[in-house]
Amino acid sequence: MQTQMQAVTYAGPGKFRLETRPVPRLLDGRDALVRVTLASICASDLHIKHGGVPRAVPGVVVGHEMVGVVEQVGAQVTAVRPGDRVAVNVETFCGSCFFCRRGSVNNCTDPQGGWALGCRIDGGQAEYVRVPFADNGLTPIPAGVTDEAALFVGDILSTGYWGAGLGEIRPGDTVLVLGAGPTGLCCMLCARLFSPAHIVAADVLPERLALAGRLGCADRTVLMGHDDAAAALGALTEGRGADVVIEAAGGRGTFEAAWRLARPGANVCVVALYDKPQTLPLPEMYGKNLTFKTGGVDANACGELLRLIERGALDTTALITHRFPLSRAMEAYDLFEARRDGVVKIALAP
Amino acid sequence: MQTQMQAVTYAGPGKFRLETRPVPRLLDGRDALVRVTLASICASDLHIKHGGVPRAVPGVVVGHEMVGVVEQVGAQVTAVRPGDRVAVNVETFCGSCFFCRRGSVNNCTDPQGGWALGCRIDGGQAEYVRVPFADNGLTPIPAGVTDEAALFVGDILSTGYWGAGLGEIRPGDTVLVLGAGPTGLCCMLCARLFSPAHIVAADVLPERLALAGRLGCADRTVLMGHDDAAAALGALTEGRGADVVIEAAGGRGTFEAAWRLARPGANVCVVALYDKPQTLPLPEMYGKNLTFKTGGVDANACGELLRLIERGALDTTALITHRFPLSRAMEAYDLFEARRDGVVKIALAP
Amino acid sequence: MQTQMQAVTYAGPGKFRLETRPVPRLLDGRDALVRVTLASICASDLHIKHGGVPRAVPGVVVGHEMVGVVEQVGAQVTAVRPGDRVAVNVETFCGSCFFCRRGSVNNCTDPQGGWALGCRIDGGQAEYVRVPFADNGLTPIPAGVTDEAALFVGDILSTGYWGAGLGEIRPGDTVLVLGAGPTGLCCMLCARLFSPAHIVAADVLPERLALAGRLGCADRTVLMGHDDAAAALGALTEGRGADVVIEAAGGRGTFEAAWRLARPGANVCVVALYDKPQTLPLPEMYGKNLTFKTGGVDANACGELLRLIERGALDTTALITHRFPLSRAMEAYDLFEARRDGVVKIALAP
Amino acid sequence: MQTQMQAVTYAGPGKFRLETRPVPRLLDGRDALVRVTLASICASDLHIKHGGVPRAVPGVVVGHEMVGVVEQVGAQVTAVRPGDRVAVNVETFCGSCFFCRRGSVNNCTDPQGGWALGCRIDGGQAEYVRVPFADNGLTPIPAGVTDEAALFVGDILSTGYWGAGLGEIRPGDTVLVLGAGPTGLCCMLCARLFSPAHIVAADVLPERLALAGRLGCADRTVLMGHDDAAAALGALTEGRGADVVIEAAGGRGTFEAAWRLARPGANVCVVALYDKPQTLPLPEMYGKNLTFKTGGVDANACGELLRLIERGALDTTALITHRFPLSRAMEAYDLFEARRDGVVKIALAP
Repeated sequence: MQTQMQAVTYAGPGKFRLETRPVPRLLDGRDALVRVTLASICASDLHIKHGGVPRAVPGVVVGHEMVGVVEQVGAQVTAVRPGDRVAVNVETFCGSCFFCRRGSVNNCTDPQGGWALGCRIDGGQAEYVRVPFADNGLTPIPAGVTDEAALFVGDILSTGYWGAGLGEIRPGDTVLVLGAGPTGLCCMLCARLFSPAHIVAADVLPERLALAGRLGCADRTVLMGHDDAAAALGALTEGRGADVVIEAAGGRGTFEAAWRLARPGANVCVVALYDKPQTLPLPEMYGKNLTFKTGGVDANACGELLRLIERGALDTTALITHRFPLSRAMEAYDLFEARRDGVVKIALAP
Repeated sequence: MQTQMQAVTYAGPGKFRLETRPVPRLLDGRDALVRVTLASICASDLHIKHGGVPRAVPGVVVGHEMVGVVEQVGAQVTAVRPGDRVAVNVETFCGSCFFCRRGSVNNCTDPQGGWALGCRIDGGQAEYVRVPFADNGLTPIPAGVTDEAALFVGDILSTGYWGAGLGEIRPGDTVLVLGAGPTGLCCMLCARLFSPAHIVAADVLPERLALAGRLGCADRTVLMGHDDAAAALGALTEGRGADVVIEAAGGRGTFEAAWRLARPGANVCVVALYDKPQTLPLPEMYGKNLTFKTGGVDANACGELLRLIERGALDTTALITHRFPLSRAMEAYDLFEARRDGVVKIALAP
Repeated sequence: MQTQMQAVTYAGPGKFRLETRPVPRLLDGRDALVRVTLASICASDLHIKHGGVPRAVPGVVVGHEMVGVVEQVGAQVTAVRPGDRVAVNVETFCGSCFFCRRGSVNNCTDPQGGWALGCRIDGGQAEYVRVPFADNGLTPIPAGVTDEAALFVGDILSTGYWGAGLGEIRPGDTVLVLGAGPTGLCCMLCARLFSPAHIVAADVLPERLALAGRLGCADRTVLMGHDDAAAALGALTEGRGADVVIEAAGGRGTFEAAWRLARPGANVCVVALYDKPQTLPLPEMYGKNLTFKTGGVDANACGELLRLIERGALDTTALITHRFPLSRAMEAYDLFEARRDGVVKIALAP
Repeated sequence: MQTQMQAVTYAGPGKFRLETRPVPRLLDGRDALVRVTLASICASDLHIKHGGVPRAVPGVVVGHEMVGVVEQVGAQVTAVRPGDRVAVNVETFCGSCFFCRRGSVNNCTDPQGGWALGCRIDGGQAEYVRVPFADNGLTPIPAGVTDEAALFVGDILSTGYWGAGLGEIRPGDTVLVLGAGPTGLCCMLCARLFSPAHIVAADVLPERLALAGRLGCADRTVLMGHDDAAAALGALTEGRGADVVIEAAGGRGTFEAAWRLARPGANVCVVALYDKPQTLPLPEMYGKNLTFKTGGVDANACGELLRLIERGALDTTALITHRFPLSRAMEAYDLFEARRDGVVKIALAP
């Protein structure tokens, strides 16, 4: 096996580099070494680049959304074997701590637990990646599912599934998703699994709403700042408002839109990352009995997601608008950051 | 308004008759009078006819699955008005008793509560029907939904929705439905709302399985007594068995099939009616940690079901294989009882 | 029966009066007339007095926490009969609307639904009160339960039970209750029903914490602004923080304390009323995965509460620190508003 | 450290022996070696002895309920360290398989998963025991909790907690527990954690009911075959029957008693082991809408149980009626099997 590889690294605030690095080695009996076959660029990578993720370690190999082939496994690994095609979970987790036992893998207390890959430990925009707790973090990809179809399973599709799950959507509900970017679209696709009567997509960009429509994941679209969102929701719900709101935008005014457009008793799921604190006007919303669910994905359902992809119930391949070899990763980042050319998601192939 | 009407009545064990009866009147401020526009014949009607429902009152007008138009409402009724097209709930319920407050409307303790219509009080195979607790038991039919599309909402579709709900199906699960008659088919259609990866239909009659396939409500079919059901389930679940079993057959050996084909920890939902006690071999199933949910439908989700029909997420019209005017109801019963001519469900139009 | 009665009324911002009013009459078949035997003064009454409840109607008889004896019932009432001793629910609700069917009785859409008594329709600081939807809003008091023991069932004890229920407390959890006033104390008493390992009471007033200790409803107390709350919680939870937080204070900084002292994945139940909007610093709490549950009580468990009081599992009589005849209600209000004499709750006897 | 130890072994159907065996060694990085300080004899040990547990391996060291001190840990073990006093979980489980991820540790698919200790692999009626998956199966005992107080945490108290949890008991409920042996008593103690209004203990042996009363874990007792159980339950529930039934007897007629004494919509939790298949008379119970939960304990809450013991919310020490040194284990078995001398549980000290 080769000993050196190409990798995109975080060289400190503002700087990402394509470098040569040693191929990683197993450090623990529960580790696996994965040969990356496809990785993606995520908005969170830009957050890291621009210093918005304080825990990101300078020098780390970035990339936290990837698929590959298992190359080696430690002695304790039982769920995967060398040669298996696998989806890699954005979160590595021990499975045994207080939080893992409750399904809250985002808060795994192991030093390598939670979102570590491509942030605190070397990630997957590289030819190889070491994955701790491989039994929990790697999921075999069924034969009929392509790498591209599985690419988002471990991160944004997990986020969409977790966000939709937080909503406790019931058949016949009306679901509002604020934000029609990659994460919002995944929320819509996953909300559909619970058979709401209506999924309403809201965004400030008409082209994103158009994409939501083309993907078939929104029944109605609302152009924020232009359409009357309250009237649109009211028309679908006898004036009550959305049964479930998923806020995946994180823009100006989107938190307020989330609770105002919710009906009394709704679940408001806050999936977005914000730059600034938000205002919670409890006196004004008194008696509305809203539940706000906040936080970061608990990525613990990759097996279910792959089964649903295999069955055709979920399909995110249309989100991949651009493909680059890993060797041209810097060029890909430029395009992604400039939002040129209708880019939604970019796939990097080592 | 007319004062006399046609009605199918239970004249005692073995005898159903088409008779002339007075049009019913409101007896309470919470009653509504509904002009029936379409009613169906149900397998339970045959149970009544043949004395299998001891609480059925001789002389009662039968029929418990119907749609119509509200003709009059009592002073306390607020949810519907004369002229509204409505689906009628098989169960009438007070909404205030111990059981109703817990959603267990099948066990409403009011003397007119639970399954009363067409059994203990006059039902809907007639030109008019008085419906107690109209605010709870009548649901307006959206303009875009036909009478035929709404016909099963109050009974077998409610049963399918309740049965599927009991299963607590999660996206990606494998669901086995035993029995592909009208109720089993409704269970399959409703199970689909929760996005299982696989719905497996099992029956002893190939033509019923063929219908399940044509309706698109089963992904796989198993001809019991011929196919190897355990192998079929195992192939879909890495050998574990069904995540959820809905037993809607009530035949010989179907209860045993239900628990044998379930994986450890599964919910086994017993929707079928049985003629005989079943055997629960607890020593043999020890450690399998099964949950058995039994009983009769809690029909309290007609609003959700109508929204789903309106949206195209549920469609039961293909179950109506035959249509008769109410005046030929006896002829319809003969055909239904003889299972002639590929009959699934019959619609009677007064 | 007498035709005139004494009643405390809201005469417009800043003014409460003891007046003579006609005894109310039944207006609907679902109404009951209750002879009040004991009413209490609530902090919400002061909110009304000072104009803090915009929907309060000038001229209304105030009082929304009371017990009494049924005097008359409308024709549709079945759950209570004249002569029954009853607890009156703060919320009147129809039981049939979209929200009531989901248990969200606070959002009942009937014009007389939700919190109406003593705010939008005449309440119970009077000799008699008309109670709409009596089957839902009146609960017979068991023979062994005194009026004083049942006095808070319909309002602050319901609030405590609802607040504790929102928390989804599991046996062995650590629960933090912010605010040891009457509502906070009820939250603690009800939290105990779910067997947390620790209930920690926090307040800025030492005498309130002392009362919490005397009532046996707090295992630990934290004097806010003095004790190190985070250290106290950390010591009980291996450093994680509270499993469940109930914020019943509504003071300066208490919302922030609520989320800071919560462990990742906690439920934070906001039972308090606030005068001002709060800040939700989502960037700072990112990854903590908190759930915030907000709103006003869904008072739909009075039967359970009375059974628990009867069994000795709940006892709120020690909250009654003062007793006045209704004729001296104005004097009682002065004392309550001035927080003189260690007052917690005052009972008014017509 | 010593190399030989005393151990009780299963020498084939009908034969238990006290033998000298080598002290076990770690076999995997996730193993721990525990020096046993106290073990108990369980009814299941007698089942093994008499051939009633087919999967029990002849030659195995028996004993599956024990506490001890960690002597050695494998390289991957992080939750415990040598010197820790620990409760040992009856079930060893991997934490990563399909079932473990869903909390169904009884069905862990690892060859050493589920109930293995003292049955398929060497157990704890010995001086030392090797415990696989130590991070999942060992729980540190708080300083204030004695070995005797912690002895039942891993098995019968886990069973009681699991059984009571299956019931989904709500405050104010009436809970019937059939069987007042050690397991039934643990079910009652744990049911109390959820604040039912009434716990009714039923048994055929008056001395067991007396013990239930002395332990304070039953509010009412019913001597089966003598008292009118239906009348007793009806008196507490306005005639409805038990809200939750926990069947921990496994005797003649106890399964039938369980469902007959349940109210409509009840959870019936079958914790008992049966020798024979039971009859499920579905036609007779139609419309009663019962849920039956069956199986073996998922022992995954030892941390919570130890916290509750530490706080005084659970106390099972009174179940220990006899104490023997391990060297006299055969004598202890004789007494236990003969049910002499009021024996409930026996503690063996190596």
